[in-house]
Amino acid sequence: MEEKIITPALRQDVALRIEKIQEAMRGAGCGALLVSSNSNLYYASGRIFRGYVYVPVEGEAVNLVIRPFGIEGSDVAYIRKPEQIVEILAERGVEVPLSVGLELDSLTVNDYSRLRKALGGGEMRDISGLLRSVREVKTPYEISLMREDGRHHVEVYRRIPGLYTENMTDLELQIEIEHCLRLEGCLGFTRMSGQLMEINMGSVLAGDNADVPGPYDFSMGGAGVDLALPVGADGSVMREGTTVMVDMNGNFNGYQTDLTRVWRLGNVSGVAERAHNLSIAILRRLEKISMPGLPVSEMAAEAYSMVEKEGLLEYFMGHRQQAGFIGHGVGIQLNELPVIMTRSKEVLAAGMTLAIEPKFVIPGVGAVGVENTYLVTPDGLENLTPAPEGMTDLL
Amino acid sequence: MEEKIITPALRQDVALRIEKIQEAMRGAGCGALLVSSNSNLYYASGRIFRGYVYVPVEGEAVNLVIRPFGIEGSDVAYIRKPEQIVEILAERGVEVPLSVGLELDSLTVNDYSRLRKALGGGEMRDISGLLRSVREVKTPYEISLMREDGRHHVEVYRRIPGLYTENMTDLELQIEIEHCLRLEGCLGFTRMSGQLMEINMGSVLAGDNADVPGPYDFSMGGAGVDLALPVGADGSVMREGTTVMVDMNGNFNGYQTDLTRVWRLGNVSGVAERAHNLSIAILRRLEKISMPGLPVSEMAAEAYSMVEKEGLLEYFMGHRQQAGFIGHGVGIQLNELPVIMTRSKEVLAAGMTLAIEPKFVIPGVGAVGVENTYLVTPDGLENLTPAPEGMTDLL
Repeated sequence: MEEKIITPALRQDVALRIEKIQEAMRGAGCGALLVSSNSNLYYASGRIFRGYVYVPVEGEAVNLVIRPFGIEGSDVAYIRKPEQIVEILAERGVEVPLSVGLELDSLTVNDYSRLRKALGGGEMRDISGLLRSVREVKTPYEISLMREDGRHHVEVYRRIPGLYTENMTDLELQIEIEHCLRLEGCLGFTRMSGQLMEINMGSVLAGDNADVPGPYDFSMGGAGVDLALPVGADGSVMREGTTVMVDMNGNFNGYQTDLTRVWRLGNVSGVAERAHNLSIAILRRLEKISMPGLPVSEMAAEAYSMVEKEGLLEYFMGHRQQAGFIGHGVGIQLNELPVIMTRSKEVLAAGMTLAIEPKFVIPGVGAVGVENTYLVTPDGLENLTPAPEGMTDLL
Repeated sequence: MEEKIITPALRQDVALRIEKIQEAMRGAGCGALLVSSNSNLYYASGRIFRGYVYVPVEGEAVNLVIRPFGIEGSDVAYIRKPEQIVEILAERGVEVPLSVGLELDSLTVNDYSRLRKALGGGEMRDISGLLRSVREVKTPYEISLMREDGRHHVEVYRRIPGLYTENMTDLELQIEIEHCLRLEGCLGFTRMSGQLMEINMGSVLAGDNADVPGPYDFSMGGAGVDLALPVGADGSVMREGTTVMVDMNGNFNGYQTDLTRVWRLGNVSGVAERAHNLSIAILRRLEKISMPGLPVSEMAAEAYSMVEKEGLLEYFMGHRQQAGFIGHGVGIQLNELPVIMTRSKEVLAAGMTLAIEPKFVIPGVGAVGVENTYLVTPDGLENLTPAPEGMTDLL
């Protein structure tokens, strides 16, 4: 009966994360906040539990646990329901201020109403953005987890050509990649921000299915195999003269890397080859210019400028429906800050982890382009997902 | 480029669902409502899209689509943002009343604030419960999808003993079942209600890992392999004298069945055998008494009474941490109404689909018990997941 434990290294990192949150609270004039979403509970405590993390601007954070029973530690207090928060904290000598920061971007209206009443009924401020900004710059421990993700992720992608057999459907290839990912230690589950994102273990897009617009905020679409989950592989047999783009789950430890590679079946059109090489050239260029201090908008502008020069704008980030970004932060959630787009106001900082994905959809061929996950270092971008980027034959 | 389409049969069923919603609205004095969550969008339109379904108490529902572009139909109107809802509906001659029902159990505070302002700023009523009740009784088309789920689900479970090899870990067995499920057509994704539920493709619980309490509202726990997803298999090698409980994803079409079976490795203790047989006896008994009109609380009471008579209460629905229910509705979401527990106020109705799961955790052995998904018919329960229930050797 192996219960997973918080190691000393993780405990130390959680203390550092709480310090980062408290520093942001001081900057924002926030006296106390209550973490409630699973992603932020995981960040602020190192585990998933049902309950809350209470963070005062000074002093120790308290994990207010409803379940499971059995979590130990001086920073743990059990409650049966949110109505006990104030009383249980008072027993520890902690006085809850009139206004407490809450996650208004993820709390439902009904949960919020109940929490607000439990906290005294005052107007509660939104700390969704504050937590998102704090999580944007990773701690050394978080970075080590993402390095580990990158190693496993790359190892599985190395094996993809060996998984392909002739006359395979895109879905069959995806299923074999999933199997390989799971055996490599992938948790098979992705946390995302908001209900606009739903997916199983990822996306394999072959041929013109890449040009089917989707309802979700992913960079690419795809019809899916059912109206119930209209994204990715549609079950078609992959055909000669088309490409297959693999963008599968890289969550091996609660953090994740985001990694896309493309293979071709036989020869594909010159424009597809050109677009793929341009994607690689964009990454090389962005690796060079993306130093701490650079506005994220300039990364996007640089990419669009390179695409425009090549006359490939109509295929960039989709064709029939185009995404408005060329990359995004990644960590506990697949879609974190910053969003790399021309109207972003964010500035690069060391410790950010970015998925950069300049992709194209070429009608009649499919999707091309490369996505890597990068760490922003003081010297520029470090690729956490170094795998061959060229488009090679699957068969 | 295969875009999935709404078939005439589905279109007709969606019309029936809207009628059911409108009937409930009349009963509740609700003049109009706006569907916003993915599960309810799927129910009320037959597809997943980004946007809303506007349902007036009389007249045609309108799908207000933000993306993807390209959805056609007289019931479709495109909007760029929620602020356009009133204007776009007015162009169709639809006047939005001052109070519109919204899903306050799933809308975030920030999305609600924006929607409320867009709808004129009045106080919006909560229609989460209304929609949950409507979805509780399935339409014939929905039932046909769940029958299909049951057939596929049972077919995969039939193959489970063939997937086992000696000295396998619980996780390795789970990964092979996942692979088999996916090849059988499982979508590999589960919609659930609330953030209290997170899982990958399901739960395989071997030996004492079944007794590790979890943070989620599932019937069983398990440590998981990582603090990031503390549920189910923990990666231990399965040992002689213990059981393995398989409770894996049955979503083949947006609906799903919920199905649990148990295997043993060699001989297990008499109490484990007795508890497993009691689980089967409880199902037989509930199949007999569960007619439309029966209070759901009586199903739970009957189960607890049978367990008490056998002196097995301390192991029922968990041991170190016990679940408060013995079953639940299932459909688009894994956790629907009714919740089968002694304090339920619900009454059985024909067309409900129920997962009934009287399970036990026996220390030193593991989890035992059976879960089937049933349709409530005028004549009682029909098992949608008929697979052998006895506990047999895995090896």
